[in-house]
Amino acid sequence: MKATAKAHTNIALIKYWGKRDESIILPTNSSLSLTLDGFYTTTTVDFQEELSKDIFTLNDEPVTGTAFNRVSAFLDLIRRSAGKDKLFANVQSINEVPTAAGFASSASGFAALAAAGAKAIGLELSDQELSRLTRQGSGSACRSIYGGFAEWEMGEKPDGSDSYAVPIAPADHWDVRVAAVILNATMKKVSSREGMKRTVDTSAFYSGWLDSIPQDLQQIKEGISGCDFEKVGQIAEANCLRMHATTLGAYPPFTYWLDTTMTVMQAVQAMRAEGIPAYFTIDAGPNVKVLYLPENEKTVEKTLRNIPGVTDVRLSKSGQGVTYL
Amino acid sequence: MKATAKAHTNIALIKYWGKRDESIILPTNSSLSLTLDGFYTTTTVDFQEELSKDIFTLNDEPVTGTAFNRVSAFLDLIRRSAGKDKLFANVQSINEVPTAAGFASSASGFAALAAAGAKAIGLELSDQELSRLTRQGSGSACRSIYGGFAEWEMGEKPDGSDSYAVPIAPADHWDVRVAAVILNATMKKVSSREGMKRTVDTSAFYSGWLDSIPQDLQQIKEGISGCDFEKVGQIAEANCLRMHATTLGAYPPFTYWLDTTMTVMQAVQAMRAEGIPAYFTIDAGPNVKVLYLPENEKTVEKTLRNIPGVTDVRLSKSGQGVTYL
Repeated sequence: MKATAKAHTNIALIKYWGKRDESIILPTNSSLSLTLDGFYTTTTVDFQEELSKDIFTLNDEPVTGTAFNRVSAFLDLIRRSAGKDKLFANVQSINEVPTAAGFASSASGFAALAAAGAKAIGLELSDQELSRLTRQGSGSACRSIYGGFAEWEMGEKPDGSDSYAVPIAPADHWDVRVAAVILNATMKKVSSREGMKRTVDTSAFYSGWLDSIPQDLQQIKEGISGCDFEKVGQIAEANCLRMHATTLGAYPPFTYWLDTTMTVMQAVQAMRAEGIPAYFTIDAGPNVKVLYLPENEKTVEKTLRNIPGVTDVRLSKSGQGVTYL
Repeated sequence: MKATAKAHTNIALIKYWGKRDESIILPTNSSLSLTLDGFYTTTTVDFQEELSKDIFTLNDEPVTGTAFNRVSAFLDLIRRSAGKDKLFANVQSINEVPTAAGFASSASGFAALAAAGAKAIGLELSDQELSRLTRQGSGSACRSIYGGFAEWEMGEKPDGSDSYAVPIAPADHWDVRVAAVILNATMKKVSSREGMKRTVDTSAFYSGWLDSIPQDLQQIKEGISGCDFEKVGQIAEANCLRMHATTLGAYPPFTYWLDTTMTVMQAVQAMRAEGIPAYFTIDAGPNVKVLYLPENEKTVEKTLRNIPGVTDVRLSKSGQGVTYL
């Protein structure tokens, strides 16, 4: 009763920003992402009759506390689905998503955990069913089931049965690249969970945000289908700015940006003014991800590395969905 | 038929951000400002029978083109009110609002022009009537008729007869100070007029902005009445962030901020974390204005001057309304 799965992180081009149900993780809007090859988690789940509780090691270190409880609570979902409530697991994860890269490791982490756990216990899940399960561990993780571009359809039902990701275009459809620009960040951060909640509860702009999503999604899917980089980049950048604007309309207002975040944004816009198509997107933190095309990789990397305050630049391509090892 | 008037600029704590009528300048929301002593315009208007057209000199230089046309069109309003359509004027303005200070000189400029022009031609206007006249030259100028805190009541009527500023608290009510933080900025890319229009026309957040104003106004007036600096500062800063967020929700999105703008914002928030009450506000440009109390003047000035990218810091107190010389 043992299985190993590998899953990659993803970067949202249309952001997931707000929950309508906190316990089973149902979003207030649909979102769309690109799975990346650079950052991934490999997880082995081994259900053993002789265990009296779960064990979780991450990068060969035993994990306890909140992180352990979150994994164990997720294994409860898997146990319940399989009708094996008393069967505990030894979970070993290797995380190739450096924290400093500014990517949430929860996306690749929960996708790999869900895939390995479901297979180990003998559940035979479709991709859709696996995505729906994964969603309950970490919302954005439900998109990492697929390679390339994936959309998380928010659904409408209170039980979440229609809230899961679907594939939009596979990894080999289009060679779009992403540079993760890592900043020397010291400012205290509002967690994405807390920021999302404060925004939903208090932002003057939250309904404006929600109203803007359907058009973004329709247009970016047209752009992806036609490999129209300018269109995809413009919509992704505008969507990112709109998401971050909602935090400025919260009460009390807050921002994930640092001054150096803006320096990178300005540099990306300056590249465009020089004829190099590049667009930024930013998650709930100060780091910036830059979309570019392979033919501009050297210029983009050099430009980004030369920005004051940038400590590292990590390049990624479109990555695969979940695989079993 | 000659008169001289002096008017000060003002800084909006609740921003004017959008027009419902472009020709007679009617706003989409009420706003509230503090008139400042540091920056002012002195204007002499001399109506002379022998002139066949208006003359306008600014800081002893003859003015032509768009700026001249705007002044002459405003004099038309005054001539029409006085029933003297064919009487032209020699207008001499001295502007003590350095362009580099990041204050719109149009507020003090049109307030002084309206006051001197109306007096010179023999109109006897109440403050309210003068404010309504001034509004048609430059919206925010209608608040500069008064010293201290003033509110521009947006009104409802299509003819603008109920859209003018009223005094909230005189200059000697409360010694609140403002540091204008000047950044090393190239020309701004989007004018305030253009930015306002694009925001009204396209921003996903514009209705959220409008909905948020009545509560801001009510609370800041309570804060001003009770000399509650923390309350006034928090509301002003939140209102500024909300105004700037609307531009991020416009299409195409834009911002008036530079990375150095954010450096100043972060420095102000860091001062607060150190126990020094200071709050920022930002108009349609990169420069930052910082509200503080007299007892913290030295610390605030020193902190602001030490920020990389800051080229000058200019201090102001609460100023007087229009005076006649």
